[in-house]
Amino acid sequence: MELLGQHRCFGGTQRFYRHDASSIGLPMRLAVFVPPQAEHEARPALFYLAGLTCTEETFPIKAGAQRLAAELGLILVAPDTSPRGAGIAGESDHWDFGVGAGFYLDATTEPWQRHYRMESYLTRELPELLAQTLPLDRQRLGICGHSMGGHGALTLALRHRGLFRSVSALAPVAAPSDCPWGVKAFTGYLGPDRSTWAAHDASALMAASSEAPFPDGILIDQGLADQFLTEQLLPERFEAACAKVGQPLTLRRHEGYDHGYYFVSSFIGDHLRFHAERLNRP
Amino acid sequence: MELLGQHRCFGGTQRFYRHDASSIGLPMRLAVFVPPQAEHEARPALFYLAGLTCTEETFPIKAGAQRLAAELGLILVAPDTSPRGAGIAGESDHWDFGVGAGFYLDATTEPWQRHYRMESYLTRELPELLAQTLPLDRQRLGICGHSMGGHGALTLALRHRGLFRSVSALAPVAAPSDCPWGVKAFTGYLGPDRSTWAAHDASALMAASSEAPFPDGILIDQGLADQFLTEQLLPERFEAACAKVGQPLTLRRHEGYDHGYYFVSSFIGDHLRFHAERLNRP
Repeated sequence: MELLGQHRCFGGTQRFYRHDASSIGLPMRLAVFVPPQAEHEARPALFYLAGLTCTEETFPIKAGAQRLAAELGLILVAPDTSPRGAGIAGESDHWDFGVGAGFYLDATTEPWQRHYRMESYLTRELPELLAQTLPLDRQRLGICGHSMGGHGALTLALRHRGLFRSVSALAPVAAPSDCPWGVKAFTGYLGPDRSTWAAHDASALMAASSEAPFPDGILIDQGLADQFLTEQLLPERFEAACAKVGQPLTLRRHEGYDHGYYFVSSFIGDHLRFHAERLNRP
Repeated sequence: MELLGQHRCFGGTQRFYRHDASSIGLPMRLAVFVPPQAEHEARPALFYLAGLTCTEETFPIKAGAQRLAAELGLILVAPDTSPRGAGIAGESDHWDFGVGAGFYLDATTEPWQRHYRMESYLTRELPELLAQTLPLDRQRLGICGHSMGGHGALTLALRHRGLFRSVSALAPVAAPSDCPWGVKAFTGYLGPDRSTWAAHDASALMAASSEAPFPDGILIDQGLADQFLTEQLLPERFEAACAKVGQPLTLRRHEGYDHGYYFVSSFIGDHLRFHAERLNRP
């Protein structure tokens, strides 16, 4: 891990790293906030997955989460939203597919399958690497995300049971098999055979669970003035799936809030508290 | 005032406006955070002046001040850092002079004096306009700023006694007559005659005061890992000037903090509290 820069922030340190990601075969960047408590002991970490067009800088710059993370002693890990520099023709032509839009899965189609492997990167490579590099307790990981990153948080938590102890999302793409962003991404990364999609669809994954995968609850915040709510996000699908399998879900609908970081920053504190509560239990 | 956009944030509203600024002769943009309390009563306002290269978006996106402003009932006003579109040859050639670098004064030289009139804009036109448009108590204004904006906050508060009840700064350009940024700006906007500069230099203005202009104190935060500290900022000059005239000053020097918004966001909360305390007094 090459340290690109670090900034003292609320008594901790906001760091930016670059490293050669073997699962992706390209250098990846990530942001890590290290709270002051990590100077003395291994601390739990919250992964935050950002949405379409974002980078590893979006969360540390816009969400204002460091203040509370410093208070709670949470490490914050913000990866990039896709591989960059794969050299695939047209990879940057669409804001909702390719660069900045990796959808947090391992692609199975050509030409994407070689490099677009965000799931392996985030669930296998990164936790190991972080535990080697930072005072991070890899038994205490939580995951959260916004929009496409909310899809990533929910699906990775559901697909890798035991890896993340707590999961939450802000305005997640909750049923990607049935919304334009998801259909475009899944068609491109997984191919047209829809039977392969359910394994990467939070609502389908939840509905297929035999019991509640997170008995301690899942937290989702959603703005009701979100311009993507009814066409792309579909939180009611995830809500119905949770009800079906008895998964406790707190889905808060907020009058007047839209899809952006003024919404995220307003509620990220509640997510940090939600995760800290669960990650700090023995 | 044309409302360009608004976003619900911490129960209040982050708004972005454009209006034809008569003192500048061009359209200007500004950001205003309106806290929830302003739905019921006129609230005090804190002006925040940003630094070189910034815009009206920098503070609302990066400082994370809305949470506490919503709690304290403070309106936050973030203007742009210069006129834009004046059409002056070379106006965008330098990151530290011209566009994005108005230095919060009225230029007296050609070709700048026609449009580069940030001081008149901020002290005459804007308070009036805001009081007409928003539930803002113009008898309760505070001013704060970062870097070039710290210079702006200190000089405007000292030059317009009674307009701002409270003043504070983060890493201000505290003695611009004696630093490269200030010398370049003052030479360009005020001309080479240094005798005209002291009236726009916070340390000189303070040293020339016959008594403490802000008996309730001034708050300044400064990072000790700030890359501009010793060449451009010179807070010790302002500190000495305050000591000379008996002006109470809290100048806090913070180990490890640099010049950026990870520093600003770490301490902006203390500035909001400082101003709210003074502005909420009867």
